[in-house]
Amino acid sequence: MAYSLGFDFGTLSCRAFLLNLEDPQDSSSGVALFEHGVLSDTLPEGTDLLGSEWALQDPRDYLQAAREALKACLPVDDPRRLQIAGIGVDCTASSPMPTNATGRPLSLDHPGEPHAYVKLWKHHRAEPWVERIQDAPGADRYLEQYGGQLSCEWLIPKAFELLESSPAMWNATERFVEAGDWIVQQLTGAWTRNLCAAGFKGMWSGNYPDAAFLNALHPELGRLADEMLAGDVISPGCRAGTLSVESADWFDLPSGIPVSAATIDAHSGLLGMGVSGAGSFGMIMGTSVCQLFVAPDRRIVPGVMGVVEGGILPGLFAYEAGQAAVGDLFSWYIQQLYPKSSTPESDCHRVLTEQAGSVPPGSNGHTVLDWINGNRSILLDPALSGAVFGLTMGSKPAEIYRACLESVVFGCRVILDAVRAAGVTFNEVVACGGLTENELLMQMYADVLGLPIRVSSEKETVACGAAMYGAMSAGFADVAALAPPASTTFMPDPAMGTRYQPAYDTYLRLHDRYGREDKLLKQLRELRHSH
Amino acid sequence: MAYSLGFDFGTLSCRAFLLNLEDPQDSSSGVALFEHGVLSDTLPEGTDLLGSEWALQDPRDYLQAAREALKACLPVDDPRRLQIAGIGVDCTASSPMPTNATGRPLSLDHPGEPHAYVKLWKHHRAEPWVERIQDAPGADRYLEQYGGQLSCEWLIPKAFELLESSPAMWNATERFVEAGDWIVQQLTGAWTRNLCAAGFKGMWSGNYPDAAFLNALHPELGRLADEMLAGDVISPGCRAGTLSVESADWFDLPSGIPVSAATIDAHSGLLGMGVSGAGSFGMIMGTSVCQLFVAPDRRIVPGVMGVVEGGILPGLFAYEAGQAAVGDLFSWYIQQLYPKSSTPESDCHRVLTEQAGSVPPGSNGHTVLDWINGNRSILLDPALSGAVFGLTMGSKPAEIYRACLESVVFGCRVILDAVRAAGVTFNEVVACGGLTENELLMQMYADVLGLPIRVSSEKETVACGAAMYGAMSAGFADVAALAPPASTTFMPDPAMGTRYQPAYDTYLRLHDRYGREDKLLKQLRELRHSH
Repeated sequence: MAYSLGFDFGTLSCRAFLLNLEDPQDSSSGVALFEHGVLSDTLPEGTDLLGSEWALQDPRDYLQAAREALKACLPVDDPRRLQIAGIGVDCTASSPMPTNATGRPLSLDHPGEPHAYVKLWKHHRAEPWVERIQDAPGADRYLEQYGGQLSCEWLIPKAFELLESSPAMWNATERFVEAGDWIVQQLTGAWTRNLCAAGFKGMWSGNYPDAAFLNALHPELGRLADEMLAGDVISPGCRAGTLSVESADWFDLPSGIPVSAATIDAHSGLLGMGVSGAGSFGMIMGTSVCQLFVAPDRRIVPGVMGVVEGGILPGLFAYEAGQAAVGDLFSWYIQQLYPKSSTPESDCHRVLTEQAGSVPPGSNGHTVLDWINGNRSILLDPALSGAVFGLTMGSKPAEIYRACLESVVFGCRVILDAVRAAGVTFNEVVACGGLTENELLMQMYADVLGLPIRVSSEKETVACGAAMYGAMSAGFADVAALAPPASTTFMPDPAMGTRYQPAYDTYLRLHDRYGREDKLLKQLRELRHSH
Repeated sequence: MAYSLGFDFGTLSCRAFLLNLEDPQDSSSGVALFEHGVLSDTLPEGTDLLGSEWALQDPRDYLQAAREALKACLPVDDPRRLQIAGIGVDCTASSPMPTNATGRPLSLDHPGEPHAYVKLWKHHRAEPWVERIQDAPGADRYLEQYGGQLSCEWLIPKAFELLESSPAMWNATERFVEAGDWIVQQLTGAWTRNLCAAGFKGMWSGNYPDAAFLNALHPELGRLADEMLAGDVISPGCRAGTLSVESADWFDLPSGIPVSAATIDAHSGLLGMGVSGAGSFGMIMGTSVCQLFVAPDRRIVPGVMGVVEGGILPGLFAYEAGQAAVGDLFSWYIQQLYPKSSTPESDCHRVLTEQAGSVPPGSNGHTVLDWINGNRSILLDPALSGAVFGLTMGSKPAEIYRACLESVVFGCRVILDAVRAAGVTFNEVVACGGLTENELLMQMYADVLGLPIRVSSEKETVACGAAMYGAMSAGFADVAALAPPASTTFMPDPAMGTRYQPAYDTYLRLHDRYGREDKLLKQLRELRHSH
C-alpha cells in the first residue's frame, strides 16, 4: 500500500493528487472542471436567480469531476489503483447544502429552487442574518473564538437564510451539511462533520449553538442543532470511514480504503507545506491571504479570527487569521488605477514588479492602507475602506504599486506581532500559492517579518495536503515527512528590516488611527450604499 | 479716439487685443509666438544650460512678437490704428531681467551667459536663496503680507541667485526689472515699477526690502535696493508715460498714446471679467487657480497669500490666494491613475466628466486631498502631498475623478470661508480660463460656495483686461462697462449645497488634520528626496 490519494474540491474544479508514500517526490495530479461552475445568474434547468451575490454549486458536479480528475491523474488500468492506503478530501468552506436523511441533495428533486443547492463559500446573501445572530442573547459564548465577529460566508447564517428565504426547502431538509462532509459521506456512507469547517466556519466549540439559543432567533431554527447537523465531529486526519462498495465501483478503486474526515482547502495547505507542529507561521497566498498555525495551547490573540482545538492536526490548537485583499489589491491597482491597461494584466504585474524593485523601502513616500475589501485580522472589520497617502505630481505607478506590496506585508506583520505578543513564537514562515512566485514580495515579507520564508516546491500544496490527511487516516506515522521540500527559502536581511521600519511605523500609526480611533474609512464605505 | 489696445505677454506668446470703447463687444485679437520660446536646455547662441529647472526668455522676443501680434489683430493700413486712446500691458511675473541704465538687456552683449537673460516666472533654481532670505533677521516685516511665505519664483530670490551665481553679470547690472515693466519702459522711455508685480511678487510694501536688510544677507545685495530697482512704483491703470517716437515707428502707431503701468497677467483677468470694486470673488482657472478680489480696506486673512494696496485697482486693496493644482490634478489623475490611457487625454476628461455627473455628491464615499503640488492657500505649505480615502474593490474611476473635482471645489470653499470670516462679503464669483467649460465643475462651485458663478463670454479675458487698463490710463471713466458680458451664470442650488455638506465636512476635517496637526503628508513628500 504505497500511495495516498487526495481530492481537492475548489470553486471551479476538483483536483486529484496521488502521493507516493515511499518516495514523496514521485507524485502526480489531474484536474477536472465542475460541469456547472459557479451558479450566479441561472440554475442548470434555466431558472433565473433574482438579485445579486448568489454563488451556488450543483452537488452532482463533485463526484463527476472527482472521477474525471482521478482518471487524469491515474489511468483506469494503472496498477497503482490497487495500492492506495488512504483517501483525503479538502473542500471550500463554508459551502453547505440541504439533503434528506440519506444524503440525497434537495436540488435533485427541486432543480428550480435556488435554496436547494450548495451555497458556495462566496455566496454573500446571508448578511442580514449575521447581525441577528450576533445580537442575540448568549451569542457571545459562540463568538469568542472568532474575536466576536461572524461572517455571512459561514454555516449558521446560511442555515438561517435557508429557513427564512425558503420555508418549503427548510421543511424538506433533514441534514444541512458542508459539501466536504457530504463528499466524505458519499464515499463512505458515514455521516461525520470535520472539526476544521465546524470549528472555523460553523460556530462549533465542543458543540454547535444549542437549540434554545437558535429557537430564540426563530422557533424553527432549533431543529438545526437537534437534527440537521447530526454526525460526529472529528479532526481531519481521523478516519471517517472506508470507501463503500458503491463508491469503489464509481471510482474504479478497491473498496475498504480508509477515508479521512474532510478539511477546508486552505487549511489542508498547512499540512501540505510540511507543518506538523508549532513554530511555523503558514500563509496560503492568493487573492486573499489565510494565515494559519498550530500551537500546543490556547492563547487569547486579539483579532485572530479562529482558534479550534484539533482543527488542523489532532491534539493541537489551530489558529486562523486573514487579510481580505492581497492578490486582489495588486490586480485592483492595475485594473482601477494603472494608466497602461492596454498591456495584459499579467505583464503589468511583471513590469511593475521589476520597476518597484528599484524603488527604495518606503516607496518614496507613499503609504497604502490595504483595506479595499475591509480588514479581517486583526481589526475584524469588513466595513473599512482603503486609502493612499503621499501623492504628488511626480508620483510614479511603480511607487504606488510598491506601496501596495508593502501594505500587505505590513498588514501581515501587524498580525504576526499580535500573535507574538500573545506568547507564541515562530522560527519560520511557510508559504504557498501563486503570489510566492513574486520574489520581490517574498523577500519583503522575510525582511519585514524578520523570519526565513520557506516556499514549497509543490504547486499543488493543498491537494498534496489532502493526500497526506488520507495517509494519516490510514495510520501512516510520519506524515510531515511526506511534504514536498522547500523550493526556495528567502532569508531575512536585518539591515533591510531596519530600512523598512519607518514606513512600517507610518503604516501602523494609520492602521491604529483609521482601524480603531477614527471612523472615517467606515463612514466613507457606508456612503457607497446610501444612495 | 474709440479704441484701446492691450498686450498680453505670456509664457510662449504675445497677444494683442483691440477693444472698441464705444461698442465693447466689437473686439479683435491677434497672437504671435516668441521666436525662442522658453529656454530650458540651450541658449539661442548654442550654450547648453547645465542642471535642471531653468526657464529663461530672450527679451528680443517681446517687442518682435508684440508687433506681429498687433499686425495679426489690426492690419498696418487699418485706420483704427489712428484712433487708439491708450495701451495696457500685462506680463507673467516675477520674470525679471538685468539691464544697463538705459534698459539695454545684458543678454544682448552676453549671449552665452544664462544669467543675462530673463528669468521666467517658472524658473525654479532660486530655492536655496529663499530660505536664507526668510531666515534673515528682520524678514518678518516684509513677509507679513504673504502670510510669512516666500516663493522661489519671486523677484528678490532671483536677484540673490544672480548675485551669487554670476558675480560678473551682477556687476554689469544697473537695473533689475520685471519684463512687464521693461516692456513699458521700451514703449515710453520711462522707468516705472508696477505695483501689482512689486507688491505680489517683489516684497514691496511702501518700499522694497532696504539696503541694510539686504546687505546683511550679502554685502553686495544692498545695491539692489539702492540702484537696481529704481523707478516710481505705480498702480496698473495709472499712466506710466506715452508711446515714444521710436516705439511708435516700430509699431506703426501714432506717438503720444498714453501707456498704463504694467500688471501681472492673471491679475489683469480680474479687470477683464468686469470687476471694478468689492463684492466679486475672482477665479482665474487653469492648471492652478488664482483667486483674486479687491476690498476697500486691509483685513488680516490668515493664509491668503498677498495683500497689496493698489495692486489691481488704484485705491483698493487687492488680495490674492491660490490653489497649486486644479487642472493639474485632473490631468494627473488621467495620466497617473486612470486605467484607460489609450484614449487621448481630452477625451478622457469628457468621458469621465459625463460619468462623474451621475455620481452623487460625496463621490460614493471617496475623498481626495488635492495637495499633489502642495497647498498655497490657506495652509501656505508647498511641502504637503495628497491622499485618497475610501477606496474599495468596487471603486470606479468616475468616482475617484469626481472626488478630484470635489476636492478642488472644497479647497476653494476653505479659502472663501477664511476670507468671509475676516469680514469680507461677496455677492458673486467671476471666473475665466479653460476649466470654465466644464459645466459639472462650475455647477459644483456654485452649489458648494453658495454664490452665483459668472463666466465671461470673452476667451481673451486677460488681454481684454490689459486693454481696459490702457483705457484707464487714458482717463476713460467707466472701465468696468467695457468688460465682456457673462456668457453663462451658474446659480447655486441650496438643496445641492446641503447634499455636499457632509463631504465638505469630511474634507475640512482631513484638511485641518493633515494641514495643521499631523505632519504625515509632509514627511511622506520629504521621503521622495531622501534617497
